[in-house]
Amino acid sequence: MRKPDGTMPLLAPMSQVAGRMAAEIGASLLRHPGPGRGKLMGGVAGVPPGRAVIIGSGTVATAAARVLMGLDARVTVMSRDLARLAYLQEHFGGRIATRVSNPQAVAEEVNGADLAILSVLVPGAAAPHVLSREMVRSMGPGAVIVDVSIDQGGAAETSRPTSHSDPIYVEEGVVHYCVTNMPGAVPQTSTQALTSATLPYIEALADFGIEDAMRRDRALAESLSTHAGRLIRGPVADVFGMQAAPNPFL
Amino acid sequence: MRKPDGTMPLLAPMSQVAGRMAAEIGASLLRHPGPGRGKLMGGVAGVPPGRAVIIGSGTVATAAARVLMGLDARVTVMSRDLARLAYLQEHFGGRIATRVSNPQAVAEEVNGADLAILSVLVPGAAAPHVLSREMVRSMGPGAVIVDVSIDQGGAAETSRPTSHSDPIYVEEGVVHYCVTNMPGAVPQTSTQALTSATLPYIEALADFGIEDAMRRDRALAESLSTHAGRLIRGPVADVFGMQAAPNPFL
Amino acid sequence: MRKPDGTMPLLAPMSQVAGRMAAEIGASLLRHPGPGRGKLMGGVAGVPPGRAVIIGSGTVATAAARVLMGLDARVTVMSRDLARLAYLQEHFGGRIATRVSNPQAVAEEVNGADLAILSVLVPGAAAPHVLSREMVRSMGPGAVIVDVSIDQGGAAETSRPTSHSDPIYVEEGVVHYCVTNMPGAVPQTSTQALTSATLPYIEALADFGIEDAMRRDRALAESLSTHAGRLIRGPVADVFGMQAAPNPFL
Amino acid sequence: MRKPDGTMPLLAPMSQVAGRMAAEIGASLLRHPGPGRGKLMGGVAGVPPGRAVIIGSGTVATAAARVLMGLDARVTVMSRDLARLAYLQEHFGGRIATRVSNPQAVAEEVNGADLAILSVLVPGAAAPHVLSREMVRSMGPGAVIVDVSIDQGGAAETSRPTSHSDPIYVEEGVVHYCVTNMPGAVPQTSTQALTSATLPYIEALADFGIEDAMRRDRALAESLSTHAGRLIRGPVADVFGMQAAPNPFL
Amino acid sequence: MRKPDGTMPLLAPMSQVAGRMAAEIGASLLRHPGPGRGKLMGGVAGVPPGRAVIIGSGTVATAAARVLMGLDARVTVMSRDLARLAYLQEHFGGRIATRVSNPQAVAEEVNGADLAILSVLVPGAAAPHVLSREMVRSMGPGAVIVDVSIDQGGAAETSRPTSHSDPIYVEEGVVHYCVTNMPGAVPQTSTQALTSATLPYIEALADFGIEDAMRRDRALAESLSTHAGRLIRGPVADVFGMQAAPNPFL
Amino acid sequence: MRKPDGTMPLLAPMSQVAGRMAAEIGASLLRHPGPGRGKLMGGVAGVPPGRAVIIGSGTVATAAARVLMGLDARVTVMSRDLARLAYLQEHFGGRIATRVSNPQAVAEEVNGADLAILSVLVPGAAAPHVLSREMVRSMGPGAVIVDVSIDQGGAAETSRPTSHSDPIYVEEGVVHYCVTNMPGAVPQTSTQALTSATLPYIEALADFGIEDAMRRDRALAESLSTHAGRLIRGPVADVFGMQAAPNPFL
Repeated sequence: MRKPDGTMPLLAPMSQVAGRMAAEIGASLLRHPGPGRGKLMGGVAGVPPGRAVIIGSGTVATAAARVLMGLDARVTVMSRDLARLAYLQEHFGGRIATRVSNPQAVAEEVNGADLAILSVLVPGAAAPHVLSREMVRSMGPGAVIVDVSIDQGGAAETSRPTSHSDPIYVEEGVVHYCVTNMPGAVPQTSTQALTSATLPYIEALADFGIEDAMRRDRALAESLSTHAGRLIRGPVADVFGMQAAPNPFL
Repeated sequence: MRKPDGTMPLLAPMSQVAGRMAAEIGASLLRHPGPGRGKLMGGVAGVPPGRAVIIGSGTVATAAARVLMGLDARVTVMSRDLARLAYLQEHFGGRIATRVSNPQAVAEEVNGADLAILSVLVPGAAAPHVLSREMVRSMGPGAVIVDVSIDQGGAAETSRPTSHSDPIYVEEGVVHYCVTNMPGAVPQTSTQALTSATLPYIEALADFGIEDAMRRDRALAESLSTHAGRLIRGPVADVFGMQAAPNPFL
Repeated sequence: MRKPDGTMPLLAPMSQVAGRMAAEIGASLLRHPGPGRGKLMGGVAGVPPGRAVIIGSGTVATAAARVLMGLDARVTVMSRDLARLAYLQEHFGGRIATRVSNPQAVAEEVNGADLAILSVLVPGAAAPHVLSREMVRSMGPGAVIVDVSIDQGGAAETSRPTSHSDPIYVEEGVVHYCVTNMPGAVPQTSTQALTSATLPYIEALADFGIEDAMRRDRALAESLSTHAGRLIRGPVADVFGMQAAPNPFL
Repeated sequence: MRKPDGTMPLLAPMSQVAGRMAAEIGASLLRHPGPGRGKLMGGVAGVPPGRAVIIGSGTVATAAARVLMGLDARVTVMSRDLARLAYLQEHFGGRIATRVSNPQAVAEEVNGADLAILSVLVPGAAAPHVLSREMVRSMGPGAVIVDVSIDQGGAAETSRPTSHSDPIYVEEGVVHYCVTNMPGAVPQTSTQALTSATLPYIEALADFGIEDAMRRDRALAESLSTHAGRLIRGPVADVFGMQAAPNPFL
Repeated sequence: MRKPDGTMPLLAPMSQVAGRMAAEIGASLLRHPGPGRGKLMGGVAGVPPGRAVIIGSGTVATAAARVLMGLDARVTVMSRDLARLAYLQEHFGGRIATRVSNPQAVAEEVNGADLAILSVLVPGAAAPHVLSREMVRSMGPGAVIVDVSIDQGGAAETSRPTSHSDPIYVEEGVVHYCVTNMPGAVPQTSTQALTSATLPYIEALADFGIEDAMRRDRALAESLSTHAGRLIRGPVADVFGMQAAPNPFL
Repeated sequence: MRKPDGTMPLLAPMSQVAGRMAAEIGASLLRHPGPGRGKLMGGVAGVPPGRAVIIGSGTVATAAARVLMGLDARVTVMSRDLARLAYLQEHFGGRIATRVSNPQAVAEEVNGADLAILSVLVPGAAAPHVLSREMVRSMGPGAVIVDVSIDQGGAAETSRPTSHSDPIYVEEGVVHYCVTNMPGAVPQTSTQALTSATLPYIEALADFGIEDAMRRDRALAESLSTHAGRLIRGPVADVFGMQAAPNPFL
């Protein structure tokens, strides 16, 4: 479901949860010696903080940046969306650095970094591999990657899906956390957040009936996949090689 | 070792490490459903943040407060040291609340709280039990206690020492993390921090020789326990029921 | 008058004035013992700050939140507009909490709160009663309600309009401030703010003449109620059960 | 009662209360047209904030500065204590200006200012008149003076004590608030703050008995005025032209 | 090139560079005695900061405000765009003042100011003279004007273009810095910023070919001035008194 | 002149001026292509900020750190004084990094850095050479060193004194600014600051006469070098191989 302004009201709260979790989990894995470096993300007086690179600049990346700043890490947010980087720099002041993303710039930033959070979303497509195996190796032993793009296939060449029961593995010396459906791990917060987002739509359906609710809210109507036994949503039809019937509410 | 102004230069860096870890670990345990509440410390838009109570106002408590603020938690720091609370309030502005600690006030604040960090140091004595069993129960199922005072015996009636290999247990429904020597879990940061703190003293010993170094630095001299085969430090002698010989460097 | 992006350029400055005043007046009433609690909104070292709930998330609510944060109060902003709450949380960081508004959540938050600021705007309709009499009572004696929605009928069951000369009354033990046209109390600031907002339109009317100015600015044209002796604005016509003539400038 | 480091532990909480109140009351009086200017301290978008001058740099002044900053006022803190001004500037960053106090500098700063908060403490002496009648007049009609030094006689030539029941008067066109014992107006906060400060001493008296408590705490002993029917405190004796007996606990 | 939302993606990075430079250069010229006042923009403890006025509220003005705030200057941003001033005030909190721009208000603010940064953009027209010669004189000897609008003819009556090799002149006692193409002075930063902004368009041209790239991106197509030997852009044609051919990609 | 608490009241304001100037000048030299890198210290959106290393942690270093943070640079403060680094980290939050200074750590941090500010004070001795020629070279062409320690001989192997009329030179590709008596370049600010600091002592001398003023203020008495034609200050006598007469006011 996508609003006319391009925002995704039901996805946004889950992205905030995932972004905050990604930062907290990254710091936690970095602490544990063995897989991680045995290092505090924020350092202490006289010991400089760790260095974190966030690739992406959407809701997940912004939430992760907030938490990493809060932990006093040194954060660089990388993205191809210059207007969004300008917003983040204006918003977070000098507390983060922003850098336009391209392969060479990514290679320079992740080299020796302590943590990389990957959140690269190409709507309707697999996530691109922004981290090559070589770049992963350049982070050095005990560094950490949290790949939030794993639901779209992962954004590192070395990423493969893991689960909450067995969340991490080490490859090229680097700890990988690639759990799909991350927000499932904080059910209390996720349930509240998701309910908050869906409730207005459920109320609309209850108050006006399905058909009227669809007519009153174009975004709701566009999110409908089937009606009267027929597939009516183009992108879904494309996936199955079918022809979509017209959406009667548009 | 204690400087004339009462600060403890070798202990302070480890206290910073322990305080930061306590906050990060508390948030981490709160996230994990099962023992914890499955809740994000900082909440997300529309879901209010968790509530954390820090008991104590020294280096550990200050470091923990910084990190919890950074995670966007609602933080109350409780202590009997009103001058220190004034400093913290002036320093952290409206981002934390401070409250004078007494049993009734503590009972009110921990009731329903998500996280309690205990850091109560009475020099040369066991930590007082600031949290009774009943107060612990009032936090509710899935709440978290991190007891940094565990090295002095623990500050909750329900605290008992645990280890890095088996760090937590649940009592009265509340997750307890009571690992002794917490900084041992982040060896890279702790080693750098501790080395930074001890190096000037090691250099003094190397540059001037032991005896001259003692004469030049009263704090160093006072920290000496034995000399020429004799016990020369009063408090240590007291513990063993012995008589201390005079310290020749004072 | 409403711009294409939905903002209301002439109303916004008055809403900023009202929001700031609401927070300052709420703190002031809380201070005065007798009706109020004799309590400082921001507390002092060792005495925790008061708790304020703002219902609404528009210009009034944002301005009120700024001032209450500045006074070091504990602030929760409640609204049904999740996207706006996300903006506020990103903007004000961890200094306020946000919570999605529904009757149960509101009941929980106002229970025992020191101050409630009500700013609920449903365009063209009476404000809904977000605070029931029972919720008001639950705030406890000496709490304060500032109802900025009073111009639309008030957002608490217990609200009734008051005036600058007799601004408050006590009901259910709670001080109510329900002055209509709040900005009238700060004429210097309000005049400057309103003049700043209206001047560009007055200049347009002076520079281009009425008709041309209307044609150049659709928002201006849409704000016109009568023309050539005929009522041309739909919503106004509806109120009087009349039929609107077409607006010649659209 | 004064600690060896010069701080006054029982006075400090009341000074925090008075400082916060002074700022809130100053803003409130400025708002009310008639005596005040009908002006919002913090301004709104497009209307610059009011200008406040704080004379003094102790606990009262610092608390007042915090609140005025929080209201988005333009604040200048003036004092002869350059080291304290350096602390405030380091602490509050660029959010306040500091200026060394001398008659010419004060005259320049209060000229046209909206609010002056006076908090000038010369221990054991009447407050100096830092604002002459002419300087008061230069603030212009509807400006506000809150004279927290009124308990020591007032720091403006035009100050005279007022009471909570009749708190203000206008002289030279400027509203004067000169209530003695300001914290009495917020009994809930003041009682909690004062109790927090005095409790440790009461406990010491209860635990050890009066005489032993005096011997254990030099500051407590020095604060004793009479013992065994004899006046033992020098400064008090001086006031009455008497000779003080020796303090048996020193 | 202008996006549908009115932003100018290729111009914005250069405006950020120019705005930051304007503030740094203004502070630098103020420091140097002789032409400047020999004054530190941010003051030190006991010496109040300098006063800066920024006229304009776009990208240049915002970047300049950030840097001047960072230098601890007292900053007032003036503009006719009230909505933008509201954004800036919400964004920068109480650290800047905003004031609606009109001749009288500008005259009041620049009187005695240390620095004026002029950034007034009227698209497709010469910059208006917001500072008259008299206003310039009122700043006083050794004040500084940085006129970023010089590329559109300058926004002060006393402005005339200068170059990087001979950047300043003094008129009415005030130092003028009116270098055209300011970002040329920081080639490393400017090149990176400009490349970041243009690269996506170059990639699109390379990936899809010119014609297809134009069809895929309306903003790109609209920015085309000539095609197949014919002038196709209206505003450019207007300048030369020519008739534009239709743009085949729209 | 040194107070009992070790602070130097007459030197501190000049150190604040020098620290702020050092940061502003460093940024300015970095901008100018030719000697400097043609780079903006704070970067812009998509272009990361420059990296600055401050060696020292006293008044100069703190003032320089404030300004560099304000310019959005990435700042690391290095010092051997761990307690002071803890203060700075607590004070500036996550906006700067701190690192204990030793030759290896300095070499790592300055490698590739854009700016190094040197402020190393060993009372009564020449500044140590904390930057070797090799470290200077490792910064790379167009980097900048501002050596505030030049009055004590300079803290880089490549430093030699320069003057306001010819302030810089290039060695090992790095721009050196080593002007002695830096505050002389901002006479207005420096004069106000110095007058503020000295005035209380001048008043004491005027009010009480020289001899009585000396007796009332031990710090003043200790600062006296000669009395009644005899040299009475030990350290000065040592420099000239003389014997100091006793100070009659101590």
